[in-house]
Amino acid sequence: MNHRSVFNMLGRILRLEAFLMLLPMIVALLYDEDSVMAFFAAICVAYVAGLVLKLLSGKKEDHMIFAREGLVTVAAAWVLLSAIGALPFYFSGEIPSYTDAFFETVSGFTTTGASILTDVEAMSHGLLFWRSFTHWIGGMGVIVLIMAIMPTSSGRSMHIMKAEMPGPIIGKLVPRVRDTAKILYLIYIVLTLVEIILLLAGDMDLFESVVHSFGTAGTGGFGVKSDSIGGYSAYSQWVITIFMLVFGVNFNLYFLILIGRIKSVLKSEELRAYILIVISAIVVVMIDVYHLFGNFSDALRYSSFQVASIITTTGYATTDFNLWPGTAKTVLLMLMFIGGCAGSTAGGIKVSRIFMMFKTIGNNLLKMLHPRAVTTVRFEGKPVDEATRRGVGEYVMLYFFIFAVFLLLISFEPFGFETNFSAISACINNVGPGFAAVGPAANYASYSVFSKYVLSFAMLLGRLELYPLLLALMPGTWLKKN
Amino acid sequence: MNHRSVFNMLGRILRLEAFLMLLPMIVALLYDEDSVMAFFAAICVAYVAGLVLKLLSGKKEDHMIFAREGLVTVAAAWVLLSAIGALPFYFSGEIPSYTDAFFETVSGFTTTGASILTDVEAMSHGLLFWRSFTHWIGGMGVIVLIMAIMPTSSGRSMHIMKAEMPGPIIGKLVPRVRDTAKILYLIYIVLTLVEIILLLAGDMDLFESVVHSFGTAGTGGFGVKSDSIGGYSAYSQWVITIFMLVFGVNFNLYFLILIGRIKSVLKSEELRAYILIVISAIVVVMIDVYHLFGNFSDALRYSSFQVASIITTTGYATTDFNLWPGTAKTVLLMLMFIGGCAGSTAGGIKVSRIFMMFKTIGNNLLKMLHPRAVTTVRFEGKPVDEATRRGVGEYVMLYFFIFAVFLLLISFEPFGFETNFSAISACINNVGPGFAAVGPAANYASYSVFSKYVLSFAMLLGRLELYPLLLALMPGTWLKKN
Repeated sequence: MNHRSVFNMLGRILRLEAFLMLLPMIVALLYDEDSVMAFFAAICVAYVAGLVLKLLSGKKEDHMIFAREGLVTVAAAWVLLSAIGALPFYFSGEIPSYTDAFFETVSGFTTTGASILTDVEAMSHGLLFWRSFTHWIGGMGVIVLIMAIMPTSSGRSMHIMKAEMPGPIIGKLVPRVRDTAKILYLIYIVLTLVEIILLLAGDMDLFESVVHSFGTAGTGGFGVKSDSIGGYSAYSQWVITIFMLVFGVNFNLYFLILIGRIKSVLKSEELRAYILIVISAIVVVMIDVYHLFGNFSDALRYSSFQVASIITTTGYATTDFNLWPGTAKTVLLMLMFIGGCAGSTAGGIKVSRIFMMFKTIGNNLLKMLHPRAVTTVRFEGKPVDEATRRGVGEYVMLYFFIFAVFLLLISFEPFGFETNFSAISACINNVGPGFAAVGPAANYASYSVFSKYVLSFAMLLGRLELYPLLLALMPGTWLKKN
Repeated sequence: MNHRSVFNMLGRILRLEAFLMLLPMIVALLYDEDSVMAFFAAICVAYVAGLVLKLLSGKKEDHMIFAREGLVTVAAAWVLLSAIGALPFYFSGEIPSYTDAFFETVSGFTTTGASILTDVEAMSHGLLFWRSFTHWIGGMGVIVLIMAIMPTSSGRSMHIMKAEMPGPIIGKLVPRVRDTAKILYLIYIVLTLVEIILLLAGDMDLFESVVHSFGTAGTGGFGVKSDSIGGYSAYSQWVITIFMLVFGVNFNLYFLILIGRIKSVLKSEELRAYILIVISAIVVVMIDVYHLFGNFSDALRYSSFQVASIITTTGYATTDFNLWPGTAKTVLLMLMFIGGCAGSTAGGIKVSRIFMMFKTIGNNLLKMLHPRAVTTVRFEGKPVDEATRRGVGEYVMLYFFIFAVFLLLISFEPFGFETNFSAISACINNVGPGFAAVGPAANYASYSVFSKYVLSFAMLLGRLELYPLLLALMPGTWLKKN
């Protein structure tokens, strides 16, 4: 383990966070809110911590980043970002408990959107802006952002970006990592701006349009109203529905569109599977909830919104779907685990893994029928090698194992099985609201301090796809001679 | 697909079932019960169906059994056995609905022990005996029984036995398949007899000792009292606790003991993991339920019984564990999925798969730390090949996928999430009782006809470890030219 290179990267990230917190501070200034001072203090802490880490990291030539350093840096970075990002909430007194502030910030950066706020409408604009901005930063990733703006970029920096980007197979769009990161952020910014403009054309003001676009883009789900998106017009709800789905698609496909390779986009198996799942889920949910709305257009709008919100793991709600009948709720629960496409801002297991899983199982059955047949599992036109296939199976296995451990850890809470089960589902998959006592009309405030840290850890594990944090927890990882 | 060989084997199995049903008929005769005629009619149906299948199968030299035929035969055999085994319940009128009778019989053969009976104590002795006897037959397997008593044994008969025996790696104890099957049944019979004798020494009469030994040996869980084992003495409860654990161990280990290789038994990694899981679970459950009993010996007895009952997927109860606190229930739920050892009569995912899963994940983390290190995953002292490792991951993945599909299929039922979730858990893992409305003090009677067939199918899938039934459901499997 090369500690110096880890410190160097962490130093950069904290200084970047200090810089990013200027934006909500300006918002607080514009609204003339007391939280300005809280932001200022937090920015100082972030910047000083960043400088200290820089000093610890020593000379530049030592900074080699290998796979291991990349994974550990990402794990440490996300924990540090959240720990310091929580300070404005805490310093301002708007979230009096540091545990709650940390939970809320982890929930923000990991684009989960689970909240401990009992009255979101009482919060100041600056802090609401910061809360939603963390979604936007966490969606595409802070490491990717560093890569995009970092002056130098070593040949090995792909290692570190890989660790933050979701999906079983990560490729570079263009030969240089830095250019890849830049293109990804450009697409991200443009799509976010388009959504802001479209929302402004509806019944949202500028502030609402911006925070909801941040929440959609990062597939996070923090809003500014107690009833989430339920109080806005049908137009706004449809815009958000469509943009949630858009941000659940692999960003590589938008790059392909930019360079004119539309055909490759249309042939994408993951995209097709994603669309098929979304449409099937909307149909099933709509049939099950039709009687609640009584007309086609409302049933379609509410069903589409909730399906889009849950499969992309955003977590916005236009109605209290906890009151929906069993089948609709079970479909939503399954969508939480499926999640969006690889290379998108969405959480969950990812459509590509689910797709490869199906192909692999089909292949196994075929092998049983024709033991001597030569069969290969193909994905996106290319054969999937043995290591990737094994990796997918093991990832899903690890996912459910970790799920079980978390369920056990919070099992002492007095909320019953449905609440605890859906809380873990909603946190590890970065969705946000679950069912029963953590449904869309409720919040996570009544969990104990212990469980709030457990759930925060579940969110981080889910966002970083398990391995980086597990590796960072192994004592052997941190040894110098490794 | 060689249809003739499948028909031939199915014919043998049904004639064997006719023969096996003589035993409960004798019990009914001894107790002078009306169900004698129901047994007689069912025996006739089984025998005639067996003869018809024999006629359809043609000449002997056609009967080649390859992997595919083995898997399909096992799938078809278990469905047929249950369909005909349900007849005595139905003909006698003691279970008036055929769906219920089928559910109860599938639950018996698959050693699940889930019941639709609302008053088990009202049943006649003959039918109670048959119900428990199906556990005993299903525990070790009907194909294994056929192999043990069949006059000839083709060189390829291992294929068919493999399909019925649980676990990721199946080996022969001795070179000849027939001898392996005989040894397994001998160990099974001796252990069952020892349990009967020990139970007779307590407060059970001969009938009770026999049916409860059948239920323990097959890790099934059908009893004859409304409160399961709760009304019997502490001595009887401890005997059953120990024998449940004994029948959850890989039978290969008992063979190793017989031939004096005690050292190999002590070195068994699966056995060690199994014991470790059992002890840890007892400790956690005991701490959580201690306040309900108030003294060490009761808390230990109730905790040990329930942990043994659930990890071996037997499903007997000495108290209504649905009323236990959340952590104890969550531990029990996790044990349902872990299940017993491979090569035992227990259900679930199996300790060996869980163990290999841990080793594999540990190995992956090690690989991330030291990308160039040469690492192998070892199990029971031997390196696990790539195909087996991938197989374990894919099995677990398929398990959870099928779980989700079943959850969706019964999601329209009005019972709530905990009931439906635990019903599927208890059925696919062949446990029997779940929580809430399907807890140990309740039953499956109020599920709809559709859901009862869905749950029956879940039990069969779980008992046969998914692939045989899935393969049998693929239309391509049944084509002649295949």
